[in-house]
Amino acid sequence: MTGDQFAPQSVDYISGKTRLFAIVGDPIAQVRSPEFVTHEFVKRGIDAIVLPMHLTVDRFDDLFPAVMAIENLDGLIITVPFKKRAAPFMRRLGPQAQITRTVSVLSKRRDGWIGEMFDGLGCVAALRRRGVQVASARIMLLGAGGAGAAIAVALASQRPKSLRIVDPDVSRAAAAAHMIAQAFPELDVAAAAASLDPDLFDVLINASPVGMLDSDACPLPIDRISPHLAVMDIVMMPDETRLLRMATAAGCNVIYGREMLGSQVSAVVDFLTTK
Amino acid sequence: MTGDQFAPQSVDYISGKTRLFAIVGDPIAQVRSPEFVTHEFVKRGIDAIVLPMHLTVDRFDDLFPAVMAIENLDGLIITVPFKKRAAPFMRRLGPQAQITRTVSVLSKRRDGWIGEMFDGLGCVAALRRRGVQVASARIMLLGAGGAGAAIAVALASQRPKSLRIVDPDVSRAAAAAHMIAQAFPELDVAAAAASLDPDLFDVLINASPVGMLDSDACPLPIDRISPHLAVMDIVMMPDETRLLRMATAAGCNVIYGREMLGSQVSAVVDFLTTK
Repeated sequence: MTGDQFAPQSVDYISGKTRLFAIVGDPIAQVRSPEFVTHEFVKRGIDAIVLPMHLTVDRFDDLFPAVMAIENLDGLIITVPFKKRAAPFMRRLGPQAQITRTVSVLSKRRDGWIGEMFDGLGCVAALRRRGVQVASARIMLLGAGGAGAAIAVALASQRPKSLRIVDPDVSRAAAAAHMIAQAFPELDVAAAAASLDPDLFDVLINASPVGMLDSDACPLPIDRISPHLAVMDIVMMPDETRLLRMATAAGCNVIYGREMLGSQVSAVVDFLTTK
Repeated sequence: MTGDQFAPQSVDYISGKTRLFAIVGDPIAQVRSPEFVTHEFVKRGIDAIVLPMHLTVDRFDDLFPAVMAIENLDGLIITVPFKKRAAPFMRRLGPQAQITRTVSVLSKRRDGWIGEMFDGLGCVAALRRRGVQVASARIMLLGAGGAGAAIAVALASQRPKSLRIVDPDVSRAAAAAHMIAQAFPELDVAAAAASLDPDLFDVLINASPVGMLDSDACPLPIDRISPHLAVMDIVMMPDETRLLRMATAAGCNVIYGREMLGSQVSAVVDFLTTK
């Protein structure tokens, strides 16, 4: 009898050399980055993993600097409700984050931490991939919350013909429009009422949660859409919201929420792995 | 064209629900627990992972409490050089740790953190599995450092007939013998010189680093061993030290360093997953 049978077998791809990344949020069990972003690392042959990391709301400010100081942790993804609170811990902010003052991805660089807001970039990339000319479009954006504001900034960076921001909370829509006007003074941007006729636009984007987990809810008080519109809904669950069912029935160019993910994951990993 | 092709594929077994464990040390790249202990989780069908976590020596005391406060982190493994420094952060210490004042495995329980010292238990389990009767043995233990002291405590818990502790640093051997005598007043334990004749013992254990990465070095100034001895060497690299080659040549019961791992991993996971 030798001792050989006691040598434990290893599992595939975690070792002492594996570099750490984490997605930080509260709660955490629902996040998908551990699978999706880790998969992108695996695909690129990078020995790294994205952990779910649950920091509670009441402890975030004292725990977060310690998490950033873990020596073999190279980057972080930030989710609800910390996108605003994580920003002040950064040494530098990327161009999107400088406008939104929120961050979704943080990278530990040689000269310190940099944070950027990627939530809007995936939306723009999805539109571009589906042939939508953002640069010359009249865009109606529904929702001026965290995701809506980030998408508004990403759209504005592409210099559309016009951008109208609609939110049931009128002051929130006005604040988002004001933020965009400050950052992009040349742009035709304004808050607008939900009673606006979507047929007067080229692109209609729902960035509000209306329709999430409720396939009968619709973010616009209408029951038909004209076919020239490109219609996107960032709601991912259900995959096909009432808004998108209407758009499909009308023969529109329809862009699903899940389409934001693919190019966003790739851009996020590029950002995370830049030194 | 649908958006389906943009849905990223997931990797196997990390998700937002995966529970976290980490091994903390400085340096970290050489540790094996991420593979071995994670493998044991996988084998038991537990959705958990052991990360390598590098905290630097100068930051340990301020970062460690924050790591313990990560909400979805349920336990920690401690390696060089933090086995002593981690102990004061525990609410309770297990029986081995109460004597050594060092910890190797920490578990987050409902009533707070408990730390235990497992380094010696694997040695005793390996001896038992190879038919060595520790309870009635005259034992010679070479090495009174961190590993040696932990093994001395684990051996003493089994009430051997006698225990002699040998170390080139005589005061260290004396301190270890004193610690054991305090904890086990009935036990025949003493520090001893390396010139002691190993043939007068039943069990010889090398818990010193002599022989590590040097297959010509031997922790005892001898060139033969009598066959009645059980000889164990905790050195794992090389697998077969000069001491073990001599013991094999003499026909002894030979126990390899790697044999400590198997039962230790299982006991560690039992401890980590107790609520």
